[in-house]
Amino acid sequence: MNMLKQAILQKGVVLSDGVLKVDSFLNHQIDPTLQVDIGNEFAKRFDEVEITKILTIESSGIAPALTTAIQLKVPVVFARKKKSLTLSSNLLTAQVYSFTKKETNEITVSRDFILEGDKVLIIDDFLANGEAALGLASLVEQARATVSGIGIVIEKSFQPGREKLQNAGYRVESLARIASLENNTVRFVEQLVTNN
Amino acid sequence: MNMLKQAILQKGVVLSDGVLKVDSFLNHQIDPTLQVDIGNEFAKRFDEVEITKILTIESSGIAPALTTAIQLKVPVVFARKKKSLTLSSNLLTAQVYSFTKKETNEITVSRDFILEGDKVLIIDDFLANGEAALGLASLVEQARATVSGIGIVIEKSFQPGREKLQNAGYRVESLARIASLENNTVRFVEQLVTNN
Repeated sequence: MNMLKQAILQKGVVLSDGVLKVDSFLNHQIDPTLQVDIGNEFAKRFDEVEITKILTIESSGIAPALTTAIQLKVPVVFARKKKSLTLSSNLLTAQVYSFTKKETNEITVSRDFILEGDKVLIIDDFLANGEAALGLASLVEQARATVSGIGIVIEKSFQPGREKLQNAGYRVESLARIASLENNTVRFVEQLVTNN
Repeated sequence: MNMLKQAILQKGVVLSDGVLKVDSFLNHQIDPTLQVDIGNEFAKRFDEVEITKILTIESSGIAPALTTAIQLKVPVVFARKKKSLTLSSNLLTAQVYSFTKKETNEITVSRDFILEGDKVLIIDDFLANGEAALGLASLVEQARATVSGIGIVIEKSFQPGREKLQNAGYRVESLARIASLENNTVRFVEQLVTNN
């Protein structure tokens, strides 16, 4: 994933030891060529896994989930953070605590679109504390479907999200793993390994 | 746009004379092949127009805006309906009234991503009363950029959105124009013309 890491290094802005702003190419302005590359990479990493559906959460997860779905030729479903008026009452729901916003949101998805027996790839833009991904996985389990894997664009590896997801038995594939944002500098996990 | 119209006829659900539910393929579950087709069609319709950026609004606008952007090779920016904590204070804002939800939302976009001189194609999933599209156009004008055109996936032609946008001087291209939802039946504008 050279294109993604280059974008993070060139266009990402470290706001604090814990916060990386990537709104110029990932989650406010979106670089479509990078998103196609991200979708291709997820499709490759989960190539040998059976996948019938992709589940993500609005809004920033939609772009990487869609480009992955275009490659894998399966539908995408995006969970909502707030109930929609035209959605039926036939909903799967999970509570997701946001450490950034210090609030709990209810995420919902229609039972019509995650079905028993579905093999679901979960895609999201960021992994930090793992709350959103665990909430999405809970929606899948409630529907008696299976989580085929979890694909993350940017993982903050210094936070406990990956460990929580792996302890819950899920396979996690993150395209960029950030070891540290200290001293205003992005350090990738692989970089640290290379430096050893 | 045969694929879109077929999906509307086969999978759309008429909830009332004014409401068409398309959440099985467009705005909750997303058919990626259809979205690629939609993006290709928008790119074709605005082929001769200069476009430097695509602007849409979360969440349902993101998929068609992204597939159009992949074709046109320009960035997408999506306006938010609620301020984000990691966005700077450097925002363009507009008030958008929702007739469906009977509430006014502030939509925002960072000034960093809509720049003076930008030629902006606005994309959205639905056009009904035109409030969202007018709000997006207002963000563009505030930035001293130009609206190159407005691309809509599904237009409810029995509501005043198109007329308002055209009166404001904007070119509107809608891929499916619905003349009526009466008697639980979707009738397209072109169909009525053919039947005359």
